Amino acid sequence: MRFPAQSFADLTAFMAKLPDADGEAIAAAKARDAVLTKPPGALGRLEDIASWYAGWRGEAAPRVSSPQVIVFAGNHGVCAQGISAFPAEVTHQMVGNFEAGGAAINQLSDLAGAQMSVVALDLDNPTADFSQDPAMSQAECLSAMQMGWEAVDASSDLLVVGEMGIGNTTAAAAIAAALLGGSGAEWAGRGTGLDDAGVRHKAGVIDAAIAKHAVTAPLDVLATFGGREIAAMAGAMLRARAERMPVILDGFICSAAALVLHQAHETALDHCVAGHLSAEGAHRAMLDAMGKAPLLDLGLRLGEGSGAALAIQIVKAALACHSGMATFAEAGVSDG
Amino acid sequence: MRFPAQSFADLTAFMAKLPDADGEAIAAAKARDAVLTKPPGALGRLEDIASWYAGWRGEAAPRVSSPQVIVFAGNHGVCAQGISAFPAEVTHQMVGNFEAGGAAINQLSDLAGAQMSVVALDLDNPTADFSQDPAMSQAECLSAMQMGWEAVDASSDLLVVGEMGIGNTTAAAAIAAALLGGSGAEWAGRGTGLDDAGVRHKAGVIDAAIAKHAVTAPLDVLATFGGREIAAMAGAMLRARAERMPVILDGFICSAAALVLHQAHETALDHCVAGHLSAEGAHRAMLDAMGKAPLLDLGLRLGEGSGAALAIQIVKAALACHSGMATFAEAGVSDG
Repeated sequence: MRFPAQSFADLTAFMAKLPDADGEAIAAAKARDAVLTKPPGALGRLEDIASWYAGWRGEAAPRVSSPQVIVFAGNHGVCAQGISAFPAEVTHQMVGNFEAGGAAINQLSDLAGAQMSVVALDLDNPTADFSQDPAMSQAECLSAMQMGWEAVDASSDLLVVGEMGIGNTTAAAAIAAALLGGSGAEWAGRGTGLDDAGVRHKAGVIDAAIAKHAVTAPLDVLATFGGREIAAMAGAMLRARAERMPVILDGFICSAAALVLHQAHETALDHCVAGHLSAEGAHRAMLDAMGKAPLLDLGLRLGEGSGAALAIQIVKAALACHSGMATFAEAGVSDG
Repeated sequence: MRFPAQSFADLTAFMAKLPDADGEAIAAAKARDAVLTKPPGALGRLEDIASWYAGWRGEAAPRVSSPQVIVFAGNHGVCAQGISAFPAEVTHQMVGNFEAGGAAINQLSDLAGAQMSVVALDLDNPTADFSQDPAMSQAECLSAMQMGWEAVDASSDLLVVGEMGIGNTTAAAAIAAALLGGSGAEWAGRGTGLDDAGVRHKAGVIDAAIAKHAVTAPLDVLATFGGREIAAMAGAMLRARAERMPVILDGFICSAAALVLHQAHETALDHCVAGHLSAEGAHRAMLDAMGKAPLLDLGLRLGEGSGAALAIQIVKAALACHSGMATFAEAGVSDG
């Protein structure tokens, strides 16, 4: 499937015609759930996940067999403002670590039986410093979204998009502030490990940039503050929707990418579930704005797609129970 | 390893000499965690789980490779009081379902790569109706504990104990009320699906039985109210401790079994982590009493070991990251 847009206007038009879940498959999944060998409702959120997933896959009793994890990496001009505890070269070094199999996301992808790939987006050419100029032009932003779109394997049946990009909690916080309002202090967190003074400085950089650029349209906000990896994540999520492939959202950065889509089109994230609640403080407010309740809350704040990759296991478990359990009739069990 | 007790007094003496975690392995695991390619603390609770597990296994960088799930089944004389939404024969029918691979715990064990076994404890001979007489004698209780002890495979490296027993939320609630105080209404929940009147009746049965038997010593409480499957779970947890095998606690019933051990000996559950928070309302109070924070909170209330089996994935992930990730030096990544 080809990337459907040469302009933000094209993309907005495309988002108005996104496919929806299959209502018949949802009804069939719920009917199946009602006769499985367990008290009604006893599997809690696993039951909701099962019918949600069934709807997107268009099957009453599917399984998750081919999950995909894509890690997008980008560098941020705003690092010049000293907003991160780690130097920008770490982005490139960590891409090497992903490729060599040494990062957390490698271990978590392996454990989940997920295909994992890394897409480094022009790391030697950081986006512009958004404290001065918009991070990306519309064309640059679309190009990054297209990279994300094209990185999705259409044969996957569950998608996790993760990221690496020193400075990208600052970009994500700026996107949230621009889209949802609130000051930099409400959205800026410690990232990879800022101290209190560092967080105050980061918040100030965000406040000044929001005032300077004064953008509000979601895709313009993405171009103005987002790194390429954030745009690519949004592009990958859109591709997944076009393929009716369910997505597990990761933490703060991934949610900022998702928020752009949500603010552009209210139902754009219906194929997404929140994998976890990040320890990056403002993540809950972002999830609340999107109406997403996290599956996990384990204090993770690593990015890379790590929390979402961990949540693949929950989605797999939901479908394994839903599609693998016997019915009362099959098992000869009295149904109360 | 042989079951160490012919009396509750023997068992109490045994519990005073339980092995502890290996402090050197914990220190080595923490030192390793500090140099892995991630910001300090960025894996949240996964880091705590890794060092806890390392301590019990006595290795700086272990993995979970042989988890075991055991489902104990028992029948409860107190079912005569009409305290369950399902008839007692369902216990036996569900054992057949476990053996045929059709239950939720079968799917979850398979997904976790866990060896699963089912131990049916004299189902045709329910325990006494504790609204009239103690459910078990000391000898019967010890025999059930021994069955649990012997069901543990010493070569396993992580244990989940689950249960099936129509009526056993009533037994578990009575155990909690007897050990921690509070009325039946505070501890009785819907179980497999009681309505409000059913819950009130269940609470009344518990209150009357607590008043009638007036036992307080933890092992006596277990014998008086517990089913055989609850005693077997306690026996299996003790065996795991003797083998330095970490345990993931399941929901309300499993926690009642664990609570007996905790009240008998304060550090008896140091090798246990709480797998999930059950939707059975009083579970949180039980976990709080044991000082355990649940890994998952997904609204499950099925028993069988299902929530704990799901949490095997979290523990596996913690150790996969801890033992599989590259260090900063190995990966050539700047450490901030």
